[in-house]
Amino acid sequence: MNSKSINEATDVLESSSATLNIDLNAIIDNYQTLASSSASADCAAVVKANAYGMGIKHVAPALYHNTECKIFFVANLPEAIELRSILKDSIIYVFDGLFAGHPDLYVEHNIRPILNDISQIKLWQGVALPCAIQFDTGINRLGLSEDETEQYLNSEFDLNVALILSHFVRSEEAEHETNKIQLEKFKKISSALPNIQASLCNSAGIFLGEEYHFDLLRPGIMLYGGNPGMSRPPNGIKGVFEIIGKILQIRPLDTGMSVGYNAIWTAERPSRVALVNVGYADGYLKLYDNCGKVFLADQIALVIGKVSMDMIAIDITGPKFDKVNVQDEVELIGSNITLEMASEVSTLGHYEILTNVGARFQRNYKIRTLT
Amino acid sequence: MNSKSINEATDVLESSSATLNIDLNAIIDNYQTLASSSASADCAAVVKANAYGMGIKHVAPALYHNTECKIFFVANLPEAIELRSILKDSIIYVFDGLFAGHPDLYVEHNIRPILNDISQIKLWQGVALPCAIQFDTGINRLGLSEDETEQYLNSEFDLNVALILSHFVRSEEAEHETNKIQLEKFKKISSALPNIQASLCNSAGIFLGEEYHFDLLRPGIMLYGGNPGMSRPPNGIKGVFEIIGKILQIRPLDTGMSVGYNAIWTAERPSRVALVNVGYADGYLKLYDNCGKVFLADQIALVIGKVSMDMIAIDITGPKFDKVNVQDEVELIGSNITLEMASEVSTLGHYEILTNVGARFQRNYKIRTLT
Repeated sequence: MNSKSINEATDVLESSSATLNIDLNAIIDNYQTLASSSASADCAAVVKANAYGMGIKHVAPALYHNTECKIFFVANLPEAIELRSILKDSIIYVFDGLFAGHPDLYVEHNIRPILNDISQIKLWQGVALPCAIQFDTGINRLGLSEDETEQYLNSEFDLNVALILSHFVRSEEAEHETNKIQLEKFKKISSALPNIQASLCNSAGIFLGEEYHFDLLRPGIMLYGGNPGMSRPPNGIKGVFEIIGKILQIRPLDTGMSVGYNAIWTAERPSRVALVNVGYADGYLKLYDNCGKVFLADQIALVIGKVSMDMIAIDITGPKFDKVNVQDEVELIGSNITLEMASEVSTLGHYEILTNVGARFQRNYKIRTLT
Repeated sequence: MNSKSINEATDVLESSSATLNIDLNAIIDNYQTLASSSASADCAAVVKANAYGMGIKHVAPALYHNTECKIFFVANLPEAIELRSILKDSIIYVFDGLFAGHPDLYVEHNIRPILNDISQIKLWQGVALPCAIQFDTGINRLGLSEDETEQYLNSEFDLNVALILSHFVRSEEAEHETNKIQLEKFKKISSALPNIQASLCNSAGIFLGEEYHFDLLRPGIMLYGGNPGMSRPPNGIKGVFEIIGKILQIRPLDTGMSVGYNAIWTAERPSRVALVNVGYADGYLKLYDNCGKVFLADQIALVIGKVSMDMIAIDITGPKFDKVNVQDEVELIGSNITLEMASEVSTLGHYEILTNVGARFQRNYKIRTLT
């Protein structure tokens, strides 16, 4: 492709694709809100799963260059190697653990493993590069079990441990006793390992109070504007992204005509229907069949019929939608159709809505001050 | 990165990522099965949404070079431009329709629009490049309405129409009268437009019988091994992909210990649990919470607790799983956990399982004879 073609192709993408607009300043602001919620702890950022679907290539540098955030967490080594190619000097931790054959690669790329059991600890012995150790305090997922924790605390290992951490079962339920039980377990471990940075809090954990904060916060979902399920989410967390579709076609329907596969919606009055270019291949799943809400012409419109692979139908009957035309923009998620609303109608959690955003969107990143 | 690092990074990806294995020969075989189901019609391939998530860069050339397939359908112009860069000489049709400013780009890239209303037809007038016209026969999605069809058939437009098409509402329900009604409507239109290639059949439509075939079949889902919802799917359609996770950690649990977020699963007996490196960020949605089925050690194991962003927990209690170890492979979808089974437990359709396969998998493509 010559440069003319490339420019034209870009224009086409912009004029004929649905778009995913991502506000990096909102992510930066959310980081500042979270970081300033603790008087004592530093604040890292969880950027696994391509920064919760928002794009690690853009999110990680935005945080690194515009905030105090210098520590990042990813899920696995390929994600870490990608992040290292983006940020040469950041500290990168990998949740997945360490496996045979991997230590050399961690060292080569200056990436820190989070060791999840004694065999992984033994595998890292003698390596000068810092590592982290995860202790399981009740989620029974990754991390040293109680027995292994006992074993670790009573043994000598040749390790440079820079961080210890644990993970909540239900930090979004502030009143649940599990949080207190996990806190006490982690306190005991961190007391036995003084002078090592300790980290317990994910996004919701931050709002359990100062005694939960230890030395390092590691928010994920709230950086991206999501609520992990708190009944009263904190103030000041901003929405980060919007999904904007475009109208492909508008058609009048007579009473009794149905729309879409299997005709699950039928017009009960003369209707006007718009087809919008976002479907389940874009992460707008069939859970929105006949119930999704979108926003256009200063109004909410309803998804009617089944979601197709590449499009949805919406009901734009009535005078308030009279001026709606082909090629008009339609908000599927954004400042009007919030994550909360999308989650409520679809039953999807904020996490899943974020991480399942499709690859086909034209992605536009907004940032004021990236240096 | 020097070549040593690149090789090592590749090794790491292979050794620490979950994998998506795609059998291009199975797609080729499925094409042949579908194409040979009609005595009269040619057969195209629908490769929209990144070839239903399987990767258009691999799927389209595999079909083009190893079968008679020379006609491809995509959803929008960006997809078409990508496909044109992959296959210089194929015929490419775009379902989305045509918008102001786009005709030049269609011409430049030798891409054929599917015109969906009279305004789009007018926009293409005078262009020498062939186009298609879609007629709506009942789905009320894209395509000329009955009124517009009438208008079109009674007017003169300066167009080079190479193809007319329509789309089924419920072709997977073979006995439903809607199919017959749509057939009659499309027959009437095609009779009025002799000497133009006509296409009605998606995958399921092919099995409604020869009179539905017209000149061109355009299967999608069955190329990729999926069933569009037929109660008796045809013989000979092969599974195309498998999702293979790896065990990150294995832990014993005492009775009464719970696993994962919100502790929705609790061990009722001493248990052994494996954590596997696939989660909802990979498209393995929370619909599999506490109900997903996976395959390892020649047995089915159950997903327990909530699906996490980057992992699931499975119950591997009992002697049949005794030899299971960390780093062992676990089939989430494949020859043992079929699309049917995954669909049944999750309620997701085959389409959605395919198109929502995540971006984080190490993708391995198998092909015998690509020329």
